[in-house]
Amino acid sequence: MAQSVLAISPAERVQAQLEQVEAALQETCVSEVEVLQEAARHIVSAGGKRVRPQLVLLATQLLDGPLCRAVPLAAACELVHTATLVHDDIVDESDSRRGRMAVQFYFGNSASVLMGDYLVVRAFGLVAGETDRQLWQILVDTIARMCEGEVLQICVKGDTSIGTDVYETIIECKTALLMSTCTRFAALISGASATVQQALTEFGYNVGMAFQIQDDILDFIGDEESLGKPVGGDLREGKVTLPVILARDAAASERRDALLEIYDKAGPLTAEEIRRATEIIRDAGGFERAREHAWEYILRAKRNLDVLPAGECQEALRILADRIVDRQN
Amino acid sequence: MAQSVLAISPAERVQAQLEQVEAALQETCVSEVEVLQEAARHIVSAGGKRVRPQLVLLATQLLDGPLCRAVPLAAACELVHTATLVHDDIVDESDSRRGRMAVQFYFGNSASVLMGDYLVVRAFGLVAGETDRQLWQILVDTIARMCEGEVLQICVKGDTSIGTDVYETIIECKTALLMSTCTRFAALISGASATVQQALTEFGYNVGMAFQIQDDILDFIGDEESLGKPVGGDLREGKVTLPVILARDAAASERRDALLEIYDKAGPLTAEEIRRATEIIRDAGGFERAREHAWEYILRAKRNLDVLPAGECQEALRILADRIVDRQN
Repeated sequence: MAQSVLAISPAERVQAQLEQVEAALQETCVSEVEVLQEAARHIVSAGGKRVRPQLVLLATQLLDGPLCRAVPLAAACELVHTATLVHDDIVDESDSRRGRMAVQFYFGNSASVLMGDYLVVRAFGLVAGETDRQLWQILVDTIARMCEGEVLQICVKGDTSIGTDVYETIIECKTALLMSTCTRFAALISGASATVQQALTEFGYNVGMAFQIQDDILDFIGDEESLGKPVGGDLREGKVTLPVILARDAAASERRDALLEIYDKAGPLTAEEIRRATEIIRDAGGFERAREHAWEYILRAKRNLDVLPAGECQEALRILADRIVDRQN
Repeated sequence: MAQSVLAISPAERVQAQLEQVEAALQETCVSEVEVLQEAARHIVSAGGKRVRPQLVLLATQLLDGPLCRAVPLAAACELVHTATLVHDDIVDESDSRRGRMAVQFYFGNSASVLMGDYLVVRAFGLVAGETDRQLWQILVDTIARMCEGEVLQICVKGDTSIGTDVYETIIECKTALLMSTCTRFAALISGASATVQQALTEFGYNVGMAFQIQDDILDFIGDEESLGKPVGGDLREGKVTLPVILARDAAASERRDALLEIYDKAGPLTAEEIRRATEIIRDAGGFERAREHAWEYILRAKRNLDVLPAGECQEALRILADRIVDRQN
């Protein structure tokens, strides 16, 4: 029996634990108000890649940490992520540029606000069972920084003059910190040394930075079907992302002006304008260079892994890191 | 020196502690993102009656509990309340009935979502310093129930057939539970007996029920200037509140039909329609009867106080309870 357990690969073990995370997600959405329970369950089971739970689980497994604590924390991180998707979907009436792209399904601004609130509070509920108060504080700080990132993003909306520094601050807050919290949680519940804690925290951070850069590339050139949404969403919303910044700095002045003109347009953009902007970015090497940035973060992430115990779990985290940039959705 | 401290009345002492709560509110809104900090501080200092902090502080004082723990908890409860006001202000594009009434100030749906999220997470941050994990769980449960109440309210929007039971469930979740959490927090940090805990928890609940009923009365017949918003907001939003339910059940069929017709109207309501509905409700005794319900809750609240230590603090809570229904804004 012991042998057969040992024969299970980390990936297989994580798969079994991911099912426990799914169960925790379903269970935490229990509510006396049936419509709320159904909606919450629908949203959390609508899928996603479960990258955050995988980070918590694989890192905990790597350190031989307590999986019974990892599962609720993994579910909490996924709930926070899901809540941000739901709240990102709140539409401004004034924002005519923005298409209606419900991440999960669309059921009105005021109901979406409540759903997001409910998912966040349930995330805290999952962490309330933790004896280590530090975890609660980390979750608080992480979500506060996520809010800051989103506010920053709103502040620079449509500002085509921003540099990579502003972009990196935004994606750090929006995406990288939560992923870094995932691996940090794993290190903390496993009682890891300060060195290991730092390495895992940085691993999550670097993977998160690469993840968001790849997201921002795919937003232009991804396959609409596998993305589940039309391309050009960021452009429509006036979000100036890394491929745009790098293309702006590399393109000949005429083409740069044409690109910025599309960004500056007041009304809704046509499919042709989006196609044209994408072409300019591609020709100026914006996607290629952005992908290089993403790979640079993945290289750093892999270097972070070097100080961790070698073996199958380390390898699984390495594969996960590679897939962050290789993915098409 | 000791004597001069003793000479300070509970009300004066609470005033000094309320200033500490204000300071805690300002401090917790510190952010590197200046625009977020300014907006958060603007919102939390825009005022309000600070009923929830007063409940925490007076009840703690009554039990001779630790005020250093009461202050952050009082600030946390106020932040949760403020966050719900901000999120309540999120407007549905589909909802043409709803007027634009920014509770604090209006700065766009997506920014309002983030502000509310930020305030809630800061509330969790204030509780993070607490060693008693039970308080975390209570805050989680309270906010989850608040979401449930808001969802229920959306579900029955425009349904003029609901009974007082549905109405009471909604206001219990929306308002009474948070107030009951305020006094419960005070009892818990003061190490009160089970009897005192229950009495204070019920006191907060009863005061909260009365508070919301009075709010719903004032929404029709309050003074617009002291309310800071136009009357008839609930009617415009299709919210069927206690005065309406009681008037519906008491009015002669012709007038009842006229009232329900105004509720059923598809488009935006005119000032004349709101005036007419208010008149029907008044003539059918809707406001008078609703106020009787509110006073009934206040009587229960005062009976809850009977098991608590007599003295100036008990008297201050009694006065606070009376003012809940006597207030005009």
